[in-house]
Amino acid sequence: MEIKVLQDIFESNRNMADEIAALLKEKKVYMIDLMSSPGSGKTTITDRLIGALKGSFRIAVIEGDIKTTKDAEKLAKHDIPIIQIETARFSGDCHLESSWIRKCLDGFDLDNLDLVIIENIGNLVCPAEFQLGDDERIVVLSVTEGEDKPVKYPLMFNSSHTLLLNKIDLLPHLEYSMDEVMENVRRTNPTIVTFPVSAKTGEGFDAVVAHLARRIREKTGK
Amino acid sequence: MEIKVLQDIFESNRNMADEIAALLKEKKVYMIDLMSSPGSGKTTITDRLIGALKGSFRIAVIEGDIKTTKDAEKLAKHDIPIIQIETARFSGDCHLESSWIRKCLDGFDLDNLDLVIIENIGNLVCPAEFQLGDDERIVVLSVTEGEDKPVKYPLMFNSSHTLLLNKIDLLPHLEYSMDEVMENVRRTNPTIVTFPVSAKTGEGFDAVVAHLARRIREKTGK
Repeated sequence: MEIKVLQDIFESNRNMADEIAALLKEKKVYMIDLMSSPGSGKTTITDRLIGALKGSFRIAVIEGDIKTTKDAEKLAKHDIPIIQIETARFSGDCHLESSWIRKCLDGFDLDNLDLVIIENIGNLVCPAEFQLGDDERIVVLSVTEGEDKPVKYPLMFNSSHTLLLNKIDLLPHLEYSMDEVMENVRRTNPTIVTFPVSAKTGEGFDAVVAHLARRIREKTGK
Repeated sequence: MEIKVLQDIFESNRNMADEIAALLKEKKVYMIDLMSSPGSGKTTITDRLIGALKGSFRIAVIEGDIKTTKDAEKLAKHDIPIIQIETARFSGDCHLESSWIRKCLDGFDLDNLDLVIIENIGNLVCPAEFQLGDDERIVVLSVTEGEDKPVKYPLMFNSSHTLLLNKIDLLPHLEYSMDEVMENVRRTNPTIVTFPVSAKTGEGFDAVVAHLARRIREKTGK
């Protein structure tokens, strides 16, 4: 019975994700699902991406947190539409589901948007199991988390299109092997596109922004 | 119906946790549930604790991972009983449950043990929801994860007895406020015992080991 219910949850989540994907195709809106462990730098990355892309595209953000609106507050300076989901108001949930994203999208004027960035709950496990109808899944891994995470959390890395290897400004102070992490990345997902970055200093972001701008233009026709 | 099933899961998990607690009381075995985000340093900490405590106490380890036996392999040098749970063999699960711990305990000779260390799945959310029948919940937070995690993941910090604030060797290279994180810790759980440590250098571990040795002696009578 438990397994049956879980299958129902995944199936209804996937159906709604398909509906969202169809809606965003019609509206020509690109959507990113940004995922990582707690404290890997998702909000600082979102901040940098908005800063770099808002001159060219109309952006909105969906902020997922279990508790607090701290991340949304950090992004408020950009003066773009932001909707906060606090999952503790539902049941302390450890991921976002497509039905909640659908409700958030109803709160945006999709005819006047090009890009929606979803900042998912800080969790390297559960969010990977829930499709949200996005165009690109981006996983952030900070180099302070060690080289083994891609093989220890395979679904997250396997189901993502893009990897941002963050906090490279700290490399001089860590015993960290870029060769080893890249070998683990390739073994888990040979086609994932990887960008080493520092959200703190901005290093590596030109390439990320160029990659995203190209993908957004392909969909929006801008 | 979904909520009913979830309640059933939590209730049966708690019943088994109570059964484990009774068994460990009878056998005079102390059990620690070590939890954190991915990459916060649980395995390096476990390694240090075993090294410092194995002269005085008989120790066994339960290693939780979604995939791989890497962590167990790192601890193999200590020549103590280690049982690995790979949750991907069940359903990719994001936490450990008491029924699995019960089975692991059956694999140990409890009459000849003083301490069991459970290294939970790297996840700051779901493991907090599942009681395992342990004596002490220890949450590890690395300073690279930012100051806001205690208020963003309140259940984990609220339900833990002890906090190891890890990777303090990196503090000179971070913009990190110890005052701010401690304020967030106090606001979430005023009674949690906090130890700033570096699993890499060993700084701060004397105090942690003294604290644990005292707690283990209280239970085992050694």
